Amino acid sequence: MNNTPPKYKIINDPVYGFISIPDRFIQELIDHPYFQRLRRIKQMGLAHYVYPGAHHTRFHHALGAMYLMDEALKVLKDKGVSITDDERLGALAAVLLHDVGHGPFSHALESTLVKGVSHEALSLAFMQELNEEFDGKLHTAIQIFKGEYPKTFLCNLVSGQLDVDRLDYLRRDSFYTGVSEGVVGAERIIKLISVVDNQLVVEEKGIYSVEKFLIARRLMYWQVYLHKTVISTEFLILNILRRVKELTLKGRTLFSGRALAYFLHRREPITTPREIVTMFSMLDDADVAASLKEWSQDEDPILSDLCQRILNRRLFKIELSNLPFSDEYLAQMRQKVEAMGTGDDFLSYHFTHNEVENTIYSTKNSPIRILLKNGEVKDITEVSETIRLLKQVENQKKYFILYPRELG
Amino acid sequence: MNNTPPKYKIINDPVYGFISIPDRFIQELIDHPYFQRLRRIKQMGLAHYVYPGAHHTRFHHALGAMYLMDEALKVLKDKGVSITDDERLGALAAVLLHDVGHGPFSHALESTLVKGVSHEALSLAFMQELNEEFDGKLHTAIQIFKGEYPKTFLCNLVSGQLDVDRLDYLRRDSFYTGVSEGVVGAERIIKLISVVDNQLVVEEKGIYSVEKFLIARRLMYWQVYLHKTVISTEFLILNILRRVKELTLKGRTLFSGRALAYFLHRREPITTPREIVTMFSMLDDADVAASLKEWSQDEDPILSDLCQRILNRRLFKIELSNLPFSDEYLAQMRQKVEAMGTGDDFLSYHFTHNEVENTIYSTKNSPIRILLKNGEVKDITEVSETIRLLKQVENQKKYFILYPRELG
Amino acid sequence: MNNTPPKYKIINDPVYGFISIPDRFIQELIDHPYFQRLRRIKQMGLAHYVYPGAHHTRFHHALGAMYLMDEALKVLKDKGVSITDDERLGALAAVLLHDVGHGPFSHALESTLVKGVSHEALSLAFMQELNEEFDGKLHTAIQIFKGEYPKTFLCNLVSGQLDVDRLDYLRRDSFYTGVSEGVVGAERIIKLISVVDNQLVVEEKGIYSVEKFLIARRLMYWQVYLHKTVISTEFLILNILRRVKELTLKGRTLFSGRALAYFLHRREPITTPREIVTMFSMLDDADVAASLKEWSQDEDPILSDLCQRILNRRLFKIELSNLPFSDEYLAQMRQKVEAMGTGDDFLSYHFTHNEVENTIYSTKNSPIRILLKNGEVKDITEVSETIRLLKQVENQKKYFILYPRELG
Amino acid sequence: MNNTPPKYKIINDPVYGFISIPDRFIQELIDHPYFQRLRRIKQMGLAHYVYPGAHHTRFHHALGAMYLMDEALKVLKDKGVSITDDERLGALAAVLLHDVGHGPFSHALESTLVKGVSHEALSLAFMQELNEEFDGKLHTAIQIFKGEYPKTFLCNLVSGQLDVDRLDYLRRDSFYTGVSEGVVGAERIIKLISVVDNQLVVEEKGIYSVEKFLIARRLMYWQVYLHKTVISTEFLILNILRRVKELTLKGRTLFSGRALAYFLHRREPITTPREIVTMFSMLDDADVAASLKEWSQDEDPILSDLCQRILNRRLFKIELSNLPFSDEYLAQMRQKVEAMGTGDDFLSYHFTHNEVENTIYSTKNSPIRILLKNGEVKDITEVSETIRLLKQVENQKKYFILYPRELG
Repeated sequence: MNNTPPKYKIINDPVYGFISIPDRFIQELIDHPYFQRLRRIKQMGLAHYVYPGAHHTRFHHALGAMYLMDEALKVLKDKGVSITDDERLGALAAVLLHDVGHGPFSHALESTLVKGVSHEALSLAFMQELNEEFDGKLHTAIQIFKGEYPKTFLCNLVSGQLDVDRLDYLRRDSFYTGVSEGVVGAERIIKLISVVDNQLVVEEKGIYSVEKFLIARRLMYWQVYLHKTVISTEFLILNILRRVKELTLKGRTLFSGRALAYFLHRREPITTPREIVTMFSMLDDADVAASLKEWSQDEDPILSDLCQRILNRRLFKIELSNLPFSDEYLAQMRQKVEAMGTGDDFLSYHFTHNEVENTIYSTKNSPIRILLKNGEVKDITEVSETIRLLKQVENQKKYFILYPRELG
Repeated sequence: MNNTPPKYKIINDPVYGFISIPDRFIQELIDHPYFQRLRRIKQMGLAHYVYPGAHHTRFHHALGAMYLMDEALKVLKDKGVSITDDERLGALAAVLLHDVGHGPFSHALESTLVKGVSHEALSLAFMQELNEEFDGKLHTAIQIFKGEYPKTFLCNLVSGQLDVDRLDYLRRDSFYTGVSEGVVGAERIIKLISVVDNQLVVEEKGIYSVEKFLIARRLMYWQVYLHKTVISTEFLILNILRRVKELTLKGRTLFSGRALAYFLHRREPITTPREIVTMFSMLDDADVAASLKEWSQDEDPILSDLCQRILNRRLFKIELSNLPFSDEYLAQMRQKVEAMGTGDDFLSYHFTHNEVENTIYSTKNSPIRILLKNGEVKDITEVSETIRLLKQVENQKKYFILYPRELG
Repeated sequence: MNNTPPKYKIINDPVYGFISIPDRFIQELIDHPYFQRLRRIKQMGLAHYVYPGAHHTRFHHALGAMYLMDEALKVLKDKGVSITDDERLGALAAVLLHDVGHGPFSHALESTLVKGVSHEALSLAFMQELNEEFDGKLHTAIQIFKGEYPKTFLCNLVSGQLDVDRLDYLRRDSFYTGVSEGVVGAERIIKLISVVDNQLVVEEKGIYSVEKFLIARRLMYWQVYLHKTVISTEFLILNILRRVKELTLKGRTLFSGRALAYFLHRREPITTPREIVTMFSMLDDADVAASLKEWSQDEDPILSDLCQRILNRRLFKIELSNLPFSDEYLAQMRQKVEAMGTGDDFLSYHFTHNEVENTIYSTKNSPIRILLKNGEVKDITEVSETIRLLKQVENQKKYFILYPRELG
Repeated sequence: MNNTPPKYKIINDPVYGFISIPDRFIQELIDHPYFQRLRRIKQMGLAHYVYPGAHHTRFHHALGAMYLMDEALKVLKDKGVSITDDERLGALAAVLLHDVGHGPFSHALESTLVKGVSHEALSLAFMQELNEEFDGKLHTAIQIFKGEYPKTFLCNLVSGQLDVDRLDYLRRDSFYTGVSEGVVGAERIIKLISVVDNQLVVEEKGIYSVEKFLIARRLMYWQVYLHKTVISTEFLILNILRRVKELTLKGRTLFSGRALAYFLHRREPITTPREIVTMFSMLDDADVAASLKEWSQDEDPILSDLCQRILNRRLFKIELSNLPFSDEYLAQMRQKVEAMGTGDDFLSYHFTHNEVENTIYSTKNSPIRILLKNGEVKDITEVSETIRLLKQVENQKKYFILYPRELG
């Protein structure tokens, strides 16, 4: 008899205690350089400027979401739902890789460097590359990821309004930020899921947990993801990259690693995301973080100023409002900012007027269905007056302007 | 009457709930670029290769240690210990800045880039710079930091075997790694401190908590700080920087930001740490992290190989042993490694033989004193048989060798 | 110099870590038999039938609320609010004793045994007794408790919609039940309180925390306090005591200790609560719990049946509805229940039709005021659309009927 | 298709989050009056006099231990260990019922009321009764409980030095007392168990966790279970019951319910535990708690004095010492106590001299075996120098005397 225990890799996770890697193939995906890259991309970008604990990575989040998927599949199997081994691996891999195409400080990058290509499209491109490398073993995962797999509940679990992605990131982000208001009973909700007509449902006694989940999510948006200072930080980095690209296209050569340089010098839009997988796989937070310091001493006064602000946390002041700003006020503020600097570009990089939006729940994209005790299935808004009411207030925009805090 | 509430900055901290900035001057220190730099230096270097949650920064740790100091001073004041406002600010500032001289991946840096200068000496240099900038307001803090302040208990709290530095990092590191075995009752210990003859003491009923603290610390060393894979990772980065420096001094120009370049090109040892404060203040984890990717495609096969290993987590295999390795075994392993590569340097960068040490408790450096109910003060080893016994086993060395895992 | 540390009693509390007794007089109140009695009264009655962890006591809750008061007073003092030593002790004592008049399984007792006397009136009677015993030292505490003290914010903290009572019980009950959805950021809210025109206010940046508090409270009501099975259990114990009193007044002598006997035999209503303090102070959960077992073997079939049900957790079935039950349905159910037993009383004890109510927020009783950044003070409903909307849905009743589960 | 979800009972547990009842038969055992009785017996007796949160019950602990068993069996199955359905149910039931024979304030009861019968023997008697009632379905559970089942690892998990009983009670008791030093990584240890030659083993990488478990256990003994005040409380209740029994056997009839009366009046020792199952099943904490209050007003001055002390927490003073007390000191203290009262019995009930013992680890009873990476199995003391050393200090006795605190 062989006493050596089988490999059973266990990862310490402060959120769930332990995450066991459930399969050899999943371990191989984790070990792949494409996935290892996610170790170097923070889940919450620069939110640590407000919440100093929020340095966790997309690598960690992807492992957490995979863990929840594993738990969810066990629960469904225990309830008699048929899930084949191939489907199990497919669902696990789809979740593990769902963010593999995320770039550094993603929103900024998406709108300047890989304009027009969403991180979902990039994730898919990465998955297709990996599928070739692993001889088609990601076929089912890709179908699930694209929402095309016949057993729809697997797609719902990967991408829907109650998917393991959201369950993990809300739980994890509230843990690392220390915003206890966002804590979600992810494990309870998962124990209460079931399947009816191939769709994911939540049993009736989970209604309060689902309400709590949607309310916590909304709270995390206003208190964390769309926190005034977080918005200010994100637009600062976005403006920096916009300036760098502008200078680059004008012929300047600015400090950067080769992957970042590739995207900075690219004029034409990317047409198929697949072509950039190799270069993109070399890109992470460190490229931007290291360059910021060099750029902070650049000869271009706009670039150096913006970079010094972010390095030393002298962020732009933000005014956030439930109502649109009046044209008069905007004109007046623009004038004031203009007077602070010189040159045409000054205003463009030192004044921002924009808006953010927070949707508590949408019936469109993979809605949350409740399985009543009598066997009926209803949308959460049909059984929860709270969510129905909150839906009225939400979908609201908030408006904001950003300008140098020296303006007072 | 003015209703506007006074400024009372509160930072969310997942470990203690909230950290209030206790003073305007402390806030100014936090806002200073020297301190903001710590946002970009991970507390645990590359330990996240083993514990994926361990991305917290020295910035966060310094805030946490300052919070514990604030609590400790309140407890002592409540017990009738006299502490002036100047001493309070001094102690808070000393703790806040105790690690301000830490570099990226510190051990590696200390032994290659700023050879011969400890991070404590660098922290002191930073504090002296800041003292000038703030017109001498750090005078008391510096005395406390240097251990020269007459009220010794303030020095004990900043640097001793039961200081707020250790209390915070053990608590914080166990939190972020998820190693619950390392959780320390920091807040309980702090409630039980007192002062006798200007020395810090712990009341008798805190003996078990102190035992637990020392045992947890020892456990964190073996299970986390000196974890096999963590050692392997640290020596890999150390070897990479050693190689980079070697190539640079031979005349190669390798990719790097200007601050890192400054240290790579420096031939002569640093004599006074103060001269390098400005350059050092520009250096952080991102410099190394971004350069690694460029170096991974360098023409030097040793450098590119080492960098690819760390990027894709193909670490060296480590053998860790309580006993020294025999000369025969070492010779045999060296021979095997030599056979794998070519060139004189191959062995030097692909085989490491070294040792680590873990001391549970030392009576030398600011020992832990227990205040008995009868008023006597004794060393912890005099009242705890457990610590006395464990001291016997500890102070032990462990020996290790590192070599490419392809060797099998 | 005397080395013996001053007394500084510290109590382990899983919720806040540690609770320090802040004063000698407070310690004397805690040591008094009236307060020690609270060790024997569960905070949540029989809710442990649903949440097996919920065995914490009113003793523990009172300590927790006192701890939060201590924290709140420190915060206010730090913000420059004037609070004298006498006011501090008064506020601490008022909170400590706010529930001292609670009886076992309180709602049942209040409506059968001490009919017409609220637990607040009883708490006041206890406080007046203690005031005499302690030579008037509770004078300020009593004024604060009665809401008559001129510094209204102290009264708000003891009894209002954001008082330390609610903050502690929500936090503590969610902790012991394991209903993480009810976790409230009590410590954050307390850090954000202030005082304007003698009224308690919350600073603007605490709006989300207040929203979260109100939503968590509402959730705890529906999910815990008004949980179907909890209601069923409470009405069972109420019916048991009602039966016991009825039999006693008919001349039967049933097993009980002397304090319980006193209340069971009392025919006339209590006019001044003070007269019963001595007897009441001998009454706790154990009286009812021990008697239940004896009564479960009583010759009266109704009493023995009801007691066996509660002992062995064969509770009545409950139907809970948002809409009132139709008269037809009620008549039909009554008929079915009647057919199960014999005797006039059977129906009265085996069928219950009643309602429960849950108010998310009321502007009447010590409302929640928000201090805006511009210095204005507004009601939470004026600044939070969420609370305004949720107020619409709430204040709703739910209707329920209870009957033996054998009915199917 | 039937949409109604299968029953899948989930219990909120603050320690593990949720406990799912894994089987219909297990649910029936939980619903049985014998098991429901455990709701009324506190796990830690009167330890809440020191740790006010410690009111959790044996009911809750038994559920927790069953949960850990369920997890352990899943881990072993995943590692290829063969476990039949019958064995699974047997192991779950054995753990669930392992404490079903515990009486109120157990140590006191065992040495006075059911003299000579251990709670293990009583648990077995209960299980045999239940086995008849459930037509032999507990056959395997009983074999496992008795340690006679051939697959020894199942017996090890129920009763050994690393059984799920200990894992749960250490975790749970540290949770409810708030003694964070006792927190044990129960879930990690369970993930690392395996089976070799039918014996339970722990994989090598679990050594530190096992060390931590043994150290935490030792700490919980000294800091909680054998805390001075806890000892004082336990001996007080023991003396009260001893006095009550003495008075009863002398012919007095004291207040009590019928089950307690049965044991108080019993002169002859119990020979087979089975004969008392029915009466014992009616006995719980409430009997003692309610009677204490009546006895506190008894005519016997010794009894009333002892009862008033426990009700109002005026406990005996305790002197605890590592060394035996000298005969002179004991004689002197006895004399002092004698002088305080009158009558022959006074001394016997107001002075106690006794000892307690704490064993960190014993190699005799189901030792802890470590499975090394090379396949060898060794005792923990052979691979952990820490445990080997701590074993030397432990197994030590501590001596104590108890006397009225008025003595000063």
